[in-house]
Amino acid sequence: MKISRRSQVEPFHAMDVLAEAIERKRQGRPVISLAVGQPASPAPKAVLEAAREALVVGRLGYTDTLGLIELRQAISAYYRRRHGVDIDPARIAVTTGSSAGFNLAFLALFDPGDRIAITRPGYPAYRNIMAALGLEVVEIAVDRASDFTLSPAVLEDAARTHGRIDGVLLASPANPTGTVTGKGALEAVMNYCRENEITFISDEIYHGLTFSGDETTALSLGDEAVVINSFSKYYCMTGWRIGWMVLPQQAVRPIERIGQNLYISAPELSQIAACAAFDATSELEAVKAVYGENRNMFLERLPKIGFSIASPMDGAFYAYADASRFTNDTSEFARTMLEAIDVAATPGKDFDPIDGHKTIRFSYAGSSADMAEALDRIEDWLTAK
Amino acid sequence: MKISRRSQVEPFHAMDVLAEAIERKRQGRPVISLAVGQPASPAPKAVLEAAREALVVGRLGYTDTLGLIELRQAISAYYRRRHGVDIDPARIAVTTGSSAGFNLAFLALFDPGDRIAITRPGYPAYRNIMAALGLEVVEIAVDRASDFTLSPAVLEDAARTHGRIDGVLLASPANPTGTVTGKGALEAVMNYCRENEITFISDEIYHGLTFSGDETTALSLGDEAVVINSFSKYYCMTGWRIGWMVLPQQAVRPIERIGQNLYISAPELSQIAACAAFDATSELEAVKAVYGENRNMFLERLPKIGFSIASPMDGAFYAYADASRFTNDTSEFARTMLEAIDVAATPGKDFDPIDGHKTIRFSYAGSSADMAEALDRIEDWLTAK
Repeated sequence: MKISRRSQVEPFHAMDVLAEAIERKRQGRPVISLAVGQPASPAPKAVLEAAREALVVGRLGYTDTLGLIELRQAISAYYRRRHGVDIDPARIAVTTGSSAGFNLAFLALFDPGDRIAITRPGYPAYRNIMAALGLEVVEIAVDRASDFTLSPAVLEDAARTHGRIDGVLLASPANPTGTVTGKGALEAVMNYCRENEITFISDEIYHGLTFSGDETTALSLGDEAVVINSFSKYYCMTGWRIGWMVLPQQAVRPIERIGQNLYISAPELSQIAACAAFDATSELEAVKAVYGENRNMFLERLPKIGFSIASPMDGAFYAYADASRFTNDTSEFARTMLEAIDVAATPGKDFDPIDGHKTIRFSYAGSSADMAEALDRIEDWLTAK
Repeated sequence: MKISRRSQVEPFHAMDVLAEAIERKRQGRPVISLAVGQPASPAPKAVLEAAREALVVGRLGYTDTLGLIELRQAISAYYRRRHGVDIDPARIAVTTGSSAGFNLAFLALFDPGDRIAITRPGYPAYRNIMAALGLEVVEIAVDRASDFTLSPAVLEDAARTHGRIDGVLLASPANPTGTVTGKGALEAVMNYCRENEITFISDEIYHGLTFSGDETTALSLGDEAVVINSFSKYYCMTGWRIGWMVLPQQAVRPIERIGQNLYISAPELSQIAACAAFDATSELEAVKAVYGENRNMFLERLPKIGFSIASPMDGAFYAYADASRFTNDTSEFARTMLEAIDVAATPGKDFDPIDGHKTIRFSYAGSSADMAEALDRIEDWLTAK
C-alpha cells in the first residue's frame, strides 16, 4: 500500500505522550499528565446543563456549516462585551475546535507553495498541518531579545532570506512560551502585514488566560485579520471539539464551501452547550485562579529543581522549561520520566525542531494537588538520579 | 485579502439548501427537508443514556487520537458478530464523522496529482475534498447498463483515457443512487485494484440500510482495503460527528500522525455514547422499517407525479429522480420548490456535474407523515403549475 509523502509529517508528540499516559492509566498506574494542554476542570455547570437539556429532546443533527445562529450571536455579543468591538455574526464561523479553524484557514487562504511565518518555538500542529497541505513553513526563532514574539523587522528579515511571505500566524497568549504580545507590538505586525498584503492570522485560543500584560484581540485593530478561537482552553471544553473563526467578509464563503465538504458541521450538542459558556464567568475565573496558583508553584519550584524557565509564562497554562542541566535529549528524558515516576510532559521538539531537545513543556492546567504531587515526584526522581 | 485557488471548489449544495431551509424554519415556515441525508429519529435511547451518564461526571477531554479503546473494541466486535471477520482494534481509527475519514485517507494515502476514480453520480464531498487537496478526480459515469457501479473494465478504460489510476473509491450502498454493489462485483474491483497496486477505499457508511441485495464489507474480501464508516446514518447520529476507519496495518501510523495534527481527537462524548449504539439493534431496525415504508411510498408516488426513478434505491435512504419532465435546471427547480411549498430537496448537480441538471435527490429519512406531506405538496404544486 502506498503511503503519501505528505503524510510524513512529524507526529504531534504531545498526543503520543497522551496515548502512552492513557495506556499506563488503564494498567492502573498513578499517572499525572502535564503533557497536554487540557484543563482538569469539566465544562462549566451551565454548559453541562444545556447539554443535558438537549439530550432530552435528543435529536442532534447537522447544523448550518457556519454554525447555529444562536452561538454565532453569542460569540458576537462576547466581543462587544469583552472587547468593545462590533462583529457581525455573519463573519463568524463555528468550527470543530480550533484545529478545524487552522485547517480551513490554510486551505481557503493559501495555495501550495505559499509561505507562512510562525514563531519557533510554537504550536506544532501549525507546522505539521501546513506541511501536509503543501505550504512552506517559515519558522522565525523568537527569544528573550525579541520578547518571544514577531515584529516587522524580523518579518522583513525572513522575507529577505526565504522570499515573499504570504501569511503570518501569531498566537497570543502563545503556546508553549506563554508570551502575551502587547497591543503596540500586535498593531505593528498587523500594519506590516496590511502594507505588504500579507494575510494575518491571530490565534487567540488562550484568550482569557492572561496573568500578566493585556490581552488584545486583533479584531480591535482591523477587520482584515483572521481570528481563530476555541472553547477548549478558558472554557474547559477540550473534548467537545468546538471553536470559532472571525473572518473578513470576503473569506466567509470560501471557508463555508470548504467547511461544507470537509466537516459538514461542528457537533450540534457542543454548539448548543457552548452557547452557555459565556455566562459562566465566575466559575471560569475560579478555575483560572487555580492556574494562577499552579503558575506560582511552577515559577518557584522549577528553578529550585534545576529547570530554568525558558520563556515568560505571562499567559496560557504552560511552563516551557530548559532541562539542559539534566539532559540533551528531552524526548528520552520525558519517556524515562513517564516510566519511572508516571509524570507525563511534552518534549520540546514538538515546539521547536531545532533547539527543542533541551526544553520540555509542563502544562499546569491540572488540580493544584496533582501539580504539587507531580513536582514532588520530579524533584525526588532527579535528586535520586 | 487573497483567497486561494484551491478553495474555488463547488459548494456542497445540499448544505446550502439546508442553510436556507433552517433560515426559513426560523422565520416560522413549515419546512420539510428532504435535502440532507439525515435521519429524523434521534440517536438510540441507550446512546442518549450513555451521553447523559458521561455528563454527570462532566469531564470530557482529548482522547487518544485513534479513539477510546472501548469504542475501537466495540467496532471490532461488531465486525465479528455482523460480518464474521476478525479485525484487530489496533487497525481501527475513530474519526470525527466519515468526513474526517475521507480527508485523512486522501491526505495520508495520496499525493497531489494522484488520480482517484469515483462514480458519477456520487457523493459530492469526495470530489470537492479531493480537488481542494490537489488530487485529480476521475469521474466514471455509471448507469443502468453498468449496474450503477464500477468494474475492472471501466477502470481499465478510465486508465487508458486519463492515465494511471492511483485510487478507487466506491460506496455501497451508494449516495445518491442507492446502488448496492454485490459481493462478486466488489471482489472483482478489489482484485483489479490489488493486481494494479491501486489503493481501494470502501465507503460503507450506509451499511445497515440495505433493502434489496446483500451488504458486503470489503474487509471480508481482503486486508488491504481502507474502509470508512460512520454512526451518522443507520445509527442516527449525524450531529454527533462520529465515525471510523478500518486500515491496513501500515496505514495506521500515517493516519494517526495526520489525525493528531489535524483533529487531535473525535468528540469524547460522542465516542462514549457511540459505544452503546451497537446494542440498539431492535430500536434501529424499527427506524429502518420506517425508511422501508417511505421507500415504498416514493417508489409508488414519484413516477405518478412525473419523476422517473433514476437509479435502483436498493439501499441508503435516497430517491434519485429524473425531473426532466418538469425542468432542465433542477437547481432552479429546487430553489423554486422550497420558496413555493417549503419542501427542500437537493439538485442533481451536487452529485453529477454533467447530467445533474436533470436530476434531483430526495432523502426519505424523515417521518412517514412528513414524507407523505412533502409528496402531497409536490404533487399539488406541480399539478397547479
